[in-house]
Amino acid sequence: MAFTVTPWEVSGAIDYDKLVEQFGVSRIGPGLLKRIEAHAAKKGLPLHHMLRRNIFFAHRDLKWILDEYEKGNRFFLYTGRGPSGSTHIGHLIPWLFTKWLQDVFDVELYFQLTDDEKFLFNPKLELEDTQRLAMENALDVIAVGFKQGKTHIFSNTGYAKTLYPQACRVAKKLTFSTAKAVFGFGNDSNVGQIFFTSMQAVPAFLPSVQAGRNIPCLIPHAIDQDPHFRVTRDIMPRMGYYKPASVQCRFLPGLTEDGKMSASKADTAIYTTDDARTVRKKVLKHAFSGGQPTVEEHRAKGGDPDIDVSYQWLTFLEENDAKLTQVYHDYKSGRLLSGELKLMLVEKLNGLLTGHQKRREQARKRLDDFWVKD
Amino acid sequence: MAFTVTPWEVSGAIDYDKLVEQFGVSRIGPGLLKRIEAHAAKKGLPLHHMLRRNIFFAHRDLKWILDEYEKGNRFFLYTGRGPSGSTHIGHLIPWLFTKWLQDVFDVELYFQLTDDEKFLFNPKLELEDTQRLAMENALDVIAVGFKQGKTHIFSNTGYAKTLYPQACRVAKKLTFSTAKAVFGFGNDSNVGQIFFTSMQAVPAFLPSVQAGRNIPCLIPHAIDQDPHFRVTRDIMPRMGYYKPASVQCRFLPGLTEDGKMSASKADTAIYTTDDARTVRKKVLKHAFSGGQPTVEEHRAKGGDPDIDVSYQWLTFLEENDAKLTQVYHDYKSGRLLSGELKLMLVEKLNGLLTGHQKRREQARKRLDDFWVKD
Repeated sequence: MAFTVTPWEVSGAIDYDKLVEQFGVSRIGPGLLKRIEAHAAKKGLPLHHMLRRNIFFAHRDLKWILDEYEKGNRFFLYTGRGPSGSTHIGHLIPWLFTKWLQDVFDVELYFQLTDDEKFLFNPKLELEDTQRLAMENALDVIAVGFKQGKTHIFSNTGYAKTLYPQACRVAKKLTFSTAKAVFGFGNDSNVGQIFFTSMQAVPAFLPSVQAGRNIPCLIPHAIDQDPHFRVTRDIMPRMGYYKPASVQCRFLPGLTEDGKMSASKADTAIYTTDDARTVRKKVLKHAFSGGQPTVEEHRAKGGDPDIDVSYQWLTFLEENDAKLTQVYHDYKSGRLLSGELKLMLVEKLNGLLTGHQKRREQARKRLDDFWVKD
Repeated sequence: MAFTVTPWEVSGAIDYDKLVEQFGVSRIGPGLLKRIEAHAAKKGLPLHHMLRRNIFFAHRDLKWILDEYEKGNRFFLYTGRGPSGSTHIGHLIPWLFTKWLQDVFDVELYFQLTDDEKFLFNPKLELEDTQRLAMENALDVIAVGFKQGKTHIFSNTGYAKTLYPQACRVAKKLTFSTAKAVFGFGNDSNVGQIFFTSMQAVPAFLPSVQAGRNIPCLIPHAIDQDPHFRVTRDIMPRMGYYKPASVQCRFLPGLTEDGKMSASKADTAIYTTDDARTVRKKVLKHAFSGGQPTVEEHRAKGGDPDIDVSYQWLTFLEENDAKLTQVYHDYKSGRLLSGELKLMLVEKLNGLLTGHQKRREQARKRLDDFWVKD
């Protein structure tokens, strides 16, 4: 089946094995998991369920990052968000994992909001829109619980005096021919789109520039952003910096369909600001079910958790393995009905969002403690 | 004869008639000159000799600028410099004229130093080099005598927080296909070069953005920069702004040859920091002469002022028409020797540079009064 995964389009039923091959990333094997688990244990934490369940499933140079860390050469984390709309649960997935990495390794995080990108690539958005959305999205980032003082959030236009000169250094080493090959640019592409990846590269070496020494960088991100970081990895050694390492996650499927959840299709997304009633309504109404048409049939034949979106979402959100396994078997055997499964997801989501929304409101007053500008 | 005039290369014997046709600019006719002369007269000034002598020879929409001005709709001036080396006499030519425009029309001037461009286009320059040169060049700009409080000098990297977001607005409306057609970009071009013209467009509308109303813009510049402003003129109306008007000058020939004076070939240039002895030595040694091989022959046959570089330079620098005409006839008749003509140029240059160098040193303390940054 055809699928597309680029930084600007994710659609179709994604074959992650093919992506691994196509992008040239590596699977995260048991050896790496064990090493990360050992570091987590020192902080009294279990291995993150997104690693246990292969949700963060691929990487580049993660072994090197751990080698350096174990030698005392601490890395920093870099991730980001394209502010094209409100934050939804799909966006939170890599951020929750990134917070865990910050907790385990006690490292700095640089969080880039690409308001320039979303303006350049979306005909319907003005710069004022993406700048406003960047500030709104930043509230969600802070609400995730990143460490104050070690977390630096910025938008590209708000931090352009620092970022643009460094982006020029990247751009000078990136030919149109390479950009075209990686991103598929053509005659119709605007010149800002063609330049943009230079801006996304900068946070991978900016802390090294600012510190005056080479610091390893680890980028947790959804796999669609990998083309940007392939380019970054190609150029940074030619500028005298380490290649950034990265760790990639799968996409949380949309409520109604396969593929990446889309903020522009309201039905397929649960927003971080949805209230409990809305969440319940959306899940009950829209979550694609792997159950049988009638209760009788379901009890007799059982449901299919592997295609059931509510179950899939629980694999991203339910930390307790035993509980999740129980759900899987109960659903498959028909003991658990589709409606009941959906309500389990609703409860999980509303539990997560209640805390998130409270912290998100408090974040309005804390923005200055995290926000970096020129 | 073949010649090339692009923003990044000027070479060969330039046919300005062909350029007018190729670029689609208009000749400045007697009607326009008369109108400008009338404005100058109100300030007690004659029409500038660079207009009288067709050195500023072409324009776009100059009539419209005067119409608006006469209706009370004041324009602002925008010009700039690519800081790839030290300032030489060739750079001063359009600046001297721009100062005159500022004096006559009493308007604001925005002066852009494109340190990003020179870094992106010159493989030998680092960003630190072009940033340093931008500051050095700014001293020359101030030394020209622009009005404090009405003159705003900035470098692209130093003002990037303001410029980059606006450049993105331009870039969104500029396809690769257009940039390729205008500038000749190809697969080998770096992505910063492709984006750059967006940065050069910004000062043509930034004052309108900042004032919240549409203000006409007049750009005095050497004709090689016209491709940038063709693009700017195409895009600005689509952003809701006036097309910027422009007025173009010829190039001061190099001391030794035809074409544009080049800061990278020291023999062909007189730098603003050259002392009197150096100027004398350079002119006497290198200025291409239209005279005869021997004094006897010169007295008998006369010299050719039309190919004599010293005479050509005087047409750019000597304000007195009668004096210049006298020189022309004296040289042509053989009464004036090549060495004597050269010494007249030396005197003119050193007169200009003595004052310039004094003001240039004073400018170090005045930089903050002119320099705009984020």
